[in-house]
Amino acid sequence: MKYELIVIGSGPAGEKAAVKAAYFGHKVALIEKEVQFGGAGVNTGTLPSKTLKETALFLSGKYDKGLYGINRAIQRDASLEDFMHRKNFVVSIESEEVKKNLELHHVDLYHGSAKFIDSRHIRISGAKEEVIEGENIIIATGSYPVNPPEIPFDHLRILDSDTILNIHRFPKSIAVLGAGVIGVEYSTIFATMGIQVFLINRNDKVLTFIDQEVVKYFLEIMKKDKIDILLNKKVLSIKAPDPTCSHSAEELIDIKLDSGEVLHVDMLLYAAGRNGSTKELDLHKVNIEVDKRECIPVNSKYQTVVPNIYAVGDCIGFPALASTSMDQGRVAVAHIFGTKDLENIAPVLPYGIYSVPEISTAGMTEEEAKTKQISYCKGIAKYKDMPRGMIMGAEEGFLKLLFTKDDLIIRGVHIVGPLATELVHHGLELIEEEKTLMDVIGKVYNFPTYHDLYKYAAYDGLGNLSGHKIKL
Amino acid sequence: MKYELIVIGSGPAGEKAAVKAAYFGHKVALIEKEVQFGGAGVNTGTLPSKTLKETALFLSGKYDKGLYGINRAIQRDASLEDFMHRKNFVVSIESEEVKKNLELHHVDLYHGSAKFIDSRHIRISGAKEEVIEGENIIIATGSYPVNPPEIPFDHLRILDSDTILNIHRFPKSIAVLGAGVIGVEYSTIFATMGIQVFLINRNDKVLTFIDQEVVKYFLEIMKKDKIDILLNKKVLSIKAPDPTCSHSAEELIDIKLDSGEVLHVDMLLYAAGRNGSTKELDLHKVNIEVDKRECIPVNSKYQTVVPNIYAVGDCIGFPALASTSMDQGRVAVAHIFGTKDLENIAPVLPYGIYSVPEISTAGMTEEEAKTKQISYCKGIAKYKDMPRGMIMGAEEGFLKLLFTKDDLIIRGVHIVGPLATELVHHGLELIEEEKTLMDVIGKVYNFPTYHDLYKYAAYDGLGNLSGHKIKL
Repeated sequence: MKYELIVIGSGPAGEKAAVKAAYFGHKVALIEKEVQFGGAGVNTGTLPSKTLKETALFLSGKYDKGLYGINRAIQRDASLEDFMHRKNFVVSIESEEVKKNLELHHVDLYHGSAKFIDSRHIRISGAKEEVIEGENIIIATGSYPVNPPEIPFDHLRILDSDTILNIHRFPKSIAVLGAGVIGVEYSTIFATMGIQVFLINRNDKVLTFIDQEVVKYFLEIMKKDKIDILLNKKVLSIKAPDPTCSHSAEELIDIKLDSGEVLHVDMLLYAAGRNGSTKELDLHKVNIEVDKRECIPVNSKYQTVVPNIYAVGDCIGFPALASTSMDQGRVAVAHIFGTKDLENIAPVLPYGIYSVPEISTAGMTEEEAKTKQISYCKGIAKYKDMPRGMIMGAEEGFLKLLFTKDDLIIRGVHIVGPLATELVHHGLELIEEEKTLMDVIGKVYNFPTYHDLYKYAAYDGLGNLSGHKIKL
Repeated sequence: MKYELIVIGSGPAGEKAAVKAAYFGHKVALIEKEVQFGGAGVNTGTLPSKTLKETALFLSGKYDKGLYGINRAIQRDASLEDFMHRKNFVVSIESEEVKKNLELHHVDLYHGSAKFIDSRHIRISGAKEEVIEGENIIIATGSYPVNPPEIPFDHLRILDSDTILNIHRFPKSIAVLGAGVIGVEYSTIFATMGIQVFLINRNDKVLTFIDQEVVKYFLEIMKKDKIDILLNKKVLSIKAPDPTCSHSAEELIDIKLDSGEVLHVDMLLYAAGRNGSTKELDLHKVNIEVDKRECIPVNSKYQTVVPNIYAVGDCIGFPALASTSMDQGRVAVAHIFGTKDLENIAPVLPYGIYSVPEISTAGMTEEEAKTKQISYCKGIAKYKDMPRGMIMGAEEGFLKLLFTKDDLIIRGVHIVGPLATELVHHGLELIEEEKTLMDVIGKVYNFPTYHDLYKYAAYDGLGNLSGHKIKL
């Protein structure tokens, strides 16, 4: 068979690319090697952890506790089945949705793993072996969790960011290795469920792409929520119980750190890195070289060194967010077929971390402003000072606006707190439109809403500038 | 005492006006006749009903039911005390906050009712009687619930929109007269608590300032939630039990409608109108005439016919929303003192109705587009089709974008569903900036969030235009 476009992988990037090309009338094939459609976005990454986070909040009643005259019982006795129930439901529905969307657009679906024969031919190895031809090819194969040899994975109690979803019981305690996005998300989810968590990071750089005032505050909240944070500590050795021994299920895992500490934990989540899923593609056949994280280098149109081959999503590396990946897929298709609807990915992107509480941010950080020697100032508003926060019992969280001093134009918005991932979009718009503090002050927000944070942060910013600090 | 500005009333409009003038260095007095500061925004209107709504959602578990493997028990046995607990807490804190904010800005506070002597002198009658002088005066006295003589109010079981907050027990059933904002908010709050509700309106015009497709859908949801909606029905008579009779507490209230139906209900909420609280001001002394709803006519700067007297907030009538009122106060002060920071109120305003589910809207409605013969088209996205909606179990709700056909510019956003009052702000911005459907499609939203509704509604709009309707 011959196609105008072959897409490899049905995650957020691949799905949107295939569907868009088909929508514009092109003949498209999509190859998926897993039984379930949707990739990490649906099956192991984005949606599962976000659903588990909401489930943890629900079961623990964390945000309701003491808010009302009565307590809804905290379900400490919630079973793992309860915990996973909603996640499994969401995943199965959404995976089906992806498949339906592809079928609706008449994308030809192939099952099996894909290998390049040359720059236009792909061999699919599955139940059926076949070769298809594509004028253009988009690689959207995603990423896989690195399993370094020094970690004795058994995927029952010593887990990676995929196999954590397969646990059969709650851990009594868990050590999380790596304080990246996945590490902090799962740490806070487990802590919310009342499980003892140790979060270990080899240096003191946590979420380096996020404004560090936000990160510092977030670390304080994690500590308050009883997460034991061990920065600048390396794991020297891990002693796992012998699985062949009948008592092994009750024995703990010993983790020896270079600080001399030894942790005894029930489970271990290795969350220190995911590499591009590119190994099986036989990329050498088309002379594409991957980097040390097995990711594919691309230009701003997501084109590889081979002009008719593109790569999008997690397999090209940072930011590896479903939201961005989808648009990478759409931009690639716009470039291939000249649809002219989406020439480039948006200049300012939102980052969302679905931890408890959420973090979301867009635009310039303080660190960036300092590096670039930009004369900036900031304004901060706290959730607990907003009537909406008061109603919802939000005790934690703030919104920070960063603006340039001379023109008061908003350059960055940084939020930690409930609904941060929703609230950031307003800030994103302010940044893109180069709005000033005065513009924000002139806006009318529904009252009471969390969006009031923007107005109060703007007033705080003015106060910081003038030294005359007061709520208006 | 002589002031540059006297503000009458400490609700959202008055507070913000007084504080802003003081912030800019002017000498300001504020007169409040109630013991509690904050007016209806804090004490009887905005915050109490919004808090009760969240409490009803919490206690009923309405949005969680069946979502997870286990049910958090529905607290049908929740006492009224439980129900009012959070409301009372929020109100007392926020009232104190208003007072603190005024004091922080060195606004002189007077307690008592205010009467005009002439255009610069106000007599305050309270524990102390005194006369103060103001170069400028802002009236922000708010509104009061109309109590027509044909309704036998006892404010125990036959209540208005203020006294509903003083009930001592839950109604077994309640009739709500008037399907305006207050009427629908309380109807849905009580229905969420499992109470039988009859909502009666004298015509079939419900929330006429809201897009009627949204209203129609909302009425369907109310019906599904077992609210008995009686449109085009007038109350002929109300027979309340004789309160001097010892059995009266068990007897029901009989409401006879012109349709022949008779309702037997435990309580009645009259929510058919609030008038401006202007009667006691002696406005005739300054030759200001009020309209038939006792509201004060003003120009676009909130100036009355007397150049140094302004009026803001509920006492000038529609929209009577805390959010708008605050900015009316700020605009008036900008005009009085030439602060130049806020010359006019924002051209596009958000409307928020805190019902279950919420309604929020900004910009052009379909009705408006038709009246003005504007060639428009629309795009709709449903909450239940969003992964975020799936995670949160949102079964109801949609977002509609209205755009002009020739240029695809977004003119209106209309939302009914959870968090609508937050989500609308993004649409507001799109309307103000005259963004097109293509601009929305080019945006990256955090995934999964409810903001995805915008993107999907934009794609739906494109599909509606082309007749080629499909999800991208």
